[in-house]
Amino acid sequence: MKILAINTSNQPLSVAVLDNDQLLAQTTITTHRKHAEFLMPVIEDLVQKADLKPTDLDRVVVAAGPGSYTGIRMAVTAAKTIASTLGIELVPVSSLLNLALNVQEEDVLINPIFDGRNQNMFTGLYRYRSRRIQTVIEDQHTNLTKWLETVSRYDQRIIILGDTDPFERSMRDVLHNRLVVANPYLGIPSATLLGLYGLSQSPVPVVDAVVPRYLRLTKAEADWKKLHPNEDTHDYVEKV
Amino acid sequence: MKILAINTSNQPLSVAVLDNDQLLAQTTITTHRKHAEFLMPVIEDLVQKADLKPTDLDRVVVAAGPGSYTGIRMAVTAAKTIASTLGIELVPVSSLLNLALNVQEEDVLINPIFDGRNQNMFTGLYRYRSRRIQTVIEDQHTNLTKWLETVSRYDQRIIILGDTDPFERSMRDVLHNRLVVANPYLGIPSATLLGLYGLSQSPVPVVDAVVPRYLRLTKAEADWKKLHPNEDTHDYVEKV
Repeated sequence: MKILAINTSNQPLSVAVLDNDQLLAQTTITTHRKHAEFLMPVIEDLVQKADLKPTDLDRVVVAAGPGSYTGIRMAVTAAKTIASTLGIELVPVSSLLNLALNVQEEDVLINPIFDGRNQNMFTGLYRYRSRRIQTVIEDQHTNLTKWLETVSRYDQRIIILGDTDPFERSMRDVLHNRLVVANPYLGIPSATLLGLYGLSQSPVPVVDAVVPRYLRLTKAEADWKKLHPNEDTHDYVEKV
Repeated sequence: MKILAINTSNQPLSVAVLDNDQLLAQTTITTHRKHAEFLMPVIEDLVQKADLKPTDLDRVVVAAGPGSYTGIRMAVTAAKTIASTLGIELVPVSSLLNLALNVQEEDVLINPIFDGRNQNMFTGLYRYRSRRIQTVIEDQHTNLTKWLETVSRYDQRIIILGDTDPFERSMRDVLHNRLVVANPYLGIPSATLLGLYGLSQSPVPVVDAVVPRYLRLTKAEADWKKLHPNEDTHDYVEKV
């Protein structure tokens, strides 16, 4: 199975092409937020470097959020367009899980974090069992105080990675030496690991139904929700 | 410090551009041995994607062997040419150490392996102390039996990675459940980790004096050595 994996959830752009569990080609760029400019040329270049034609692809795996509004919208739109155009499978994956995959250790809790400003965070808790990653606490948009209440109940070591700077000090005050801060390079998502994970997942039944996982209402959505109190916000994403 | 890191030691080609410990751009391709065709265009593309000019680079870090004869010759030649042309620093690094960097675990022995055919191997033994990698046994060209005699004296877990297939079974017979086989994706070297490691190392005093680390005589070298019994094989590499 030939897999295209895409992550533009935040500033880094990472794209990989795999043949089952074998990496064929990967590019990661951290210098731009210009994903609109780079994403399609990088995909085309990698498919070519992998000695494939776009029609050889069988599955697209996309980091569908949470993350930057435009970043995950771009990745999900590109992934849906490619999957629809080629008539191939689509697997959306949590962008936080994608980051958690960078940690290889068993027997620890893995806590990827994206900064949500003002001591808010997008976060979730993961761990490995027999080399397979599991969700311990679902991805959520929360604040540091609430999150610390939740994770302090566990007595295992907790590895934080991603946007750790705004939170490390307060987390250290509560978790003490159970807190481990991952090497900063582990804060960059790997599309290779995204593709490997997506290989083991079931594709969505309906490609068109996939929407970005913002996990927080944007101002525009909040305004829309006031006007349409009885509708689901998924409708906003689909309609607007 | 702007760093260019290059590894074409075996089939995978991995190139990265870093700004100190921050990855700017990386590409890895596993599908070709045509490094001669791909290496320079990939370097130029990545320097551009990193928003740099070649003259912005301060240091080249190269995986200098062991590995495939043409692969390490290509990488070392490219790295020396770039370093000389731009008048910048050069850091050669063991290609086996580059692979060992893929393992993040402390308190284990890390055993990267390149297949040397007929139960021979290029290998070395590494470990982390306080997140810094250390050499436990120097890189060498040896055979499986000798290597097993050496590593069986240690009582820690040993993680093998790289070309593990030809050796796993015999190593399991001796090391039993102390042997851990790394996930196959860890068998692909990361130029990002090469660059990060090279950041902490001293550059060579004389760029021109750097030669590939073959660790085994090629047939041509062996023939030459017969004719020049009193000369060092380094002279062969430099002269021929």
